[in-house]
Amino acid sequence: MSTRRDRRRVVVALGGNALGDNLDEQMRAAQIAANAIVEIVEADWELVLVHGNGPQVGMIETAFEVAARVEADRVRAEARAEPRAEPAPTPTGATPAPTSAPRPQTAFSVLPMSVCVALSQGYIGYDLQNVLRRTFEVRGLSTPVATIITQVLVDPNDPAFHNPAKPIGGFMSEAEAAHLRSEGVAVMEDSGRGWRRVVASPEPVDILEAKTVQAMLAAGQVPIACGGGGIPVALIEGRYHGQTAVVDKDLAAAKLAECIDADLLIILTAVEQVYLDFGTSSQRAIDRMDVEEAERLLLAGQFAKGSMEPKIEAAVRFVRSGRGREVVIADLRQARAAIEGAAGTRIVA
Amino acid sequence: MSTRRDRRRVVVALGGNALGDNLDEQMRAAQIAANAIVEIVEADWELVLVHGNGPQVGMIETAFEVAARVEADRVRAEARAEPRAEPAPTPTGATPAPTSAPRPQTAFSVLPMSVCVALSQGYIGYDLQNVLRRTFEVRGLSTPVATIITQVLVDPNDPAFHNPAKPIGGFMSEAEAAHLRSEGVAVMEDSGRGWRRVVASPEPVDILEAKTVQAMLAAGQVPIACGGGGIPVALIEGRYHGQTAVVDKDLAAAKLAECIDADLLIILTAVEQVYLDFGTSSQRAIDRMDVEEAERLLLAGQFAKGSMEPKIEAAVRFVRSGRGREVVIADLRQARAAIEGAAGTRIVA
Repeated sequence: MSTRRDRRRVVVALGGNALGDNLDEQMRAAQIAANAIVEIVEADWELVLVHGNGPQVGMIETAFEVAARVEADRVRAEARAEPRAEPAPTPTGATPAPTSAPRPQTAFSVLPMSVCVALSQGYIGYDLQNVLRRTFEVRGLSTPVATIITQVLVDPNDPAFHNPAKPIGGFMSEAEAAHLRSEGVAVMEDSGRGWRRVVASPEPVDILEAKTVQAMLAAGQVPIACGGGGIPVALIEGRYHGQTAVVDKDLAAAKLAECIDADLLIILTAVEQVYLDFGTSSQRAIDRMDVEEAERLLLAGQFAKGSMEPKIEAAVRFVRSGRGREVVIADLRQARAAIEGAAGTRIVA
Repeated sequence: MSTRRDRRRVVVALGGNALGDNLDEQMRAAQIAANAIVEIVEADWELVLVHGNGPQVGMIETAFEVAARVEADRVRAEARAEPRAEPAPTPTGATPAPTSAPRPQTAFSVLPMSVCVALSQGYIGYDLQNVLRRTFEVRGLSTPVATIITQVLVDPNDPAFHNPAKPIGGFMSEAEAAHLRSEGVAVMEDSGRGWRRVVASPEPVDILEAKTVQAMLAAGQVPIACGGGGIPVALIEGRYHGQTAVVDKDLAAAKLAECIDADLLIILTAVEQVYLDFGTSSQRAIDRMDVEEAERLLLAGQFAKGSMEPKIEAAVRFVRSGRGREVVIADLRQARAAIEGAAGTRIVA
């Protein structure tokens, strides 16, 4: 076995919003990402792909919530219609079908957020690896690509659990948000674009499947990992319990990049560069800044919460985690140029 | 690098029904499977875990179907209530929210079966790897475990597409089945246990992510792969297109075992052994049979369709695929004994 550092290693973080709101949009976005990724691999980088899941995990969570509500309404209606035919619930809480006429087993429950993240990794990862594989093949490359279902360890005492702040799912009106809030669901106004549900966003402490990412890289393969920031789990009373939370995908990508000793983290988003005084008449792009400057600007509140701020925070952490580590924040379509310093904003030590 | 055959290699196929009907049952079943799997790994086998997804994929498919129906009803009701406020559909078919009052973006669509399989791999794989990882840790082993989202190549001209025969989802009454059939959904009576939906079950031609399974094994890790038989895709006009199908998980496990040159395939199920004249007064267990005997019994119709028959078929194929390859069919709780020939039914060359 050769030792490390024959090839440079990059973690590419792709935004969930960039993947679109439905399967058709996701397939098109996956092709754009695949074209960029293949060029980076052709330039002889070892590459790990991390993706967000904001719109997708909200869609999955809501679908099961709707199905569970419809099921509950149906069971209640049947109970009113024929009270004596209703069997007693079993100890597990499931309602057994009457022996005379089997009932469809559609006893849906609302899925925990951790499980929704797991489903979203299958949903998005499948599309990405499907399109990436074919894009490699068409270019004459046989590079294997696969999605690794990834858990991210969080601290059950993380203060974030007392202050849900991560938006998930689609936008809603203020009236709809008020209704959800009255039912105990956390909601928040998101960057002037409308109201959204919010969940806790704890710190990523460790990436449980980092060694599988390493094994794929060592074999010359492209892993897709930490989808949606990873499935948040906490070690409580001897078991890894899924948490009602979403880990920020850029912070998770930075943690993974640290765990696998990457050289570069590229955060791909919908803007070409990081800007000072964004959205004002004095707005100007940053080509390059050192980590102290980035920290100073973070403290000065230059970056939008839940948007550019966590990206800069992730960048600062990764650059500070080891010698020679750099971060580029760039537009999805300019990934190839960004890796060579010809596009985006580069954050260095 | 050492060459192969330092350690024996086994593919363990676990039934989807054995994983239960809800998250609590799945967690308990995962622990039983984990205990068996850890013992096999401790006996110095390289191990790949394949699992079924019959109940789970049906549950996922139905949840999105229900959510899509509720959404469609709501949009229709709103259109009737305020026809002039309804915006024109966009070219993509999505209905944009009116600018005055943003509408929740819950535009669900019924998910293609291939996508449902991808979600089920995340749903089940997460639980299995979570429990397996912890079970290894408690025993003092640091063996990494991870789920690989896995696609299975099928032939778009497979005759199975004209004859849907694979049951998915829960049971329903004959009346409910007749209603679904009138809506164009394929249904079938399943082994005297009630009616179920059925989809096409084409042959697995290749396992697209087999090289990632190999890379994990080479690194001493335990991959979970081919969940639910794998996501069925066919290469059509230069792209891998998801198919409305479910590949039999035992046939997929046999194909994976062949691709990675395994020595043994263990098919874990709810019965202790394979029986002759099953369910009759002359029922008797088979400890061991050769592949010619298995084929003869298959032709004689000794094994139940959709149940024991595909397991024997998978066994015959794997034993015939290469020298020294064997198969054991056994109860989940006897996996450790079965691997040593002390339980189950063994099929040999």
